[in-house]
Amino acid sequence: MARVSQAHLDARRRQILDGAARCFARNGFHGTSMQDVLQEVGLSAGAVYRYFSGKDDLIAAIAGEAVGGVRQAFEEAARVSPPPTPDVLIGRVTRTLFDGDRELDRRAYAGLIVQVWSETLRSERLAATLSEAYGGLKVAWAELVEVYRETGVLSADVPSDHVARTLIATAQGFIAQLAMFGDATPEMLEDGLRGLMSMDLQPVS
Amino acid sequence: MARVSQAHLDARRRQILDGAARCFARNGFHGTSMQDVLQEVGLSAGAVYRYFSGKDDLIAAIAGEAVGGVRQAFEEAARVSPPPTPDVLIGRVTRTLFDGDRELDRRAYAGLIVQVWSETLRSERLAATLSEAYGGLKVAWAELVEVYRETGVLSADVPSDHVARTLIATAQGFIAQLAMFGDATPEMLEDGLRGLMSMDLQPVS
Repeated sequence: MARVSQAHLDARRRQILDGAARCFARNGFHGTSMQDVLQEVGLSAGAVYRYFSGKDDLIAAIAGEAVGGVRQAFEEAARVSPPPTPDVLIGRVTRTLFDGDRELDRRAYAGLIVQVWSETLRSERLAATLSEAYGGLKVAWAELVEVYRETGVLSADVPSDHVARTLIATAQGFIAQLAMFGDATPEMLEDGLRGLMSMDLQPVS
Repeated sequence: MARVSQAHLDARRRQILDGAARCFARNGFHGTSMQDVLQEVGLSAGAVYRYFSGKDDLIAAIAGEAVGGVRQAFEEAARVSPPPTPDVLIGRVTRTLFDGDRELDRRAYAGLIVQVWSETLRSERLAATLSEAYGGLKVAWAELVEVYRETGVLSADVPSDHVARTLIATAQGFIAQLAMFGDATPEMLEDGLRGLMSMDLQPVS
């Protein structure tokens, strides 16, 4: 029997994941069967089950990649020193996430992320993956907010963790809008954050 | 045959919707059968099908109520004149949505909303409902941002629509965090927005 190279195994695994992602983006996790995935990737059941034990395993792998991508985009942005202001950083995060060379288009990829969110409500495995990734990026962004505070960019006396989570929330809301309406752009979020940062803290009297 | 009062019909309909919402929050739209709903509400199929033609009809009704609730919370907040600053307004929106007297607890209700988002990717009916509601609240909040601009609260030269959508995104991200992690509070978002508003627009040098 011919030896199969690691590169070949990796490429085959990638091919299956990409095909499954297309199916999931089109018909949802629940509207996709393993038969659909086999047909999409043009492989036999034997070839696919060598890599993934079933649909839940495929969902977990794809969700893990999506979550990892989101976490990486946030953490990379947070590592720049000195950090640009939040409008620039969040713009970078959303560009990294959605302007890259991906198998799915922007809207379909955002839709896949929203499906993962929804799926965490029922899958403890996914919930744990999301919770761990989110924990990591909350810490990274709270440290970033501390730098804003130390350098005088942030002057309000509010917990860094709350500012970090609100910034993460803007990107999550962007993902929801992109998935549902298709017309959200990184510029929208950059402008919006600049607008917020330009606002006066005093209430209108 | 005894005449059935409108109040009785309304109460029965409410009872079915509340029971279905509990099922959906627990097991998801796809993990819930009509049989589960019948068992949860303790009614016969005949009694339930008098009000709803099937699961899709129940999902549409529950999604419509959730979307209507979100839209109403945003539009009510936007109607106050003169408007309080965004931290106060978004705090009000999230309190109205999640601190009210609801059948579901905060986290389960947020989870239901995230499920609705996910479901719009496959249901044109839901997508149209969401799109219409979102269109309405985008307009209401863009007008609010115009008031901020006219009264000098907003000084950055950015499109009002972008600021409005970014503010809506913070609430959507809050809903996603509440659904997935259970620990998001309106105070978090108020503090975070205050932090952002206190930030200097100049990049750190």
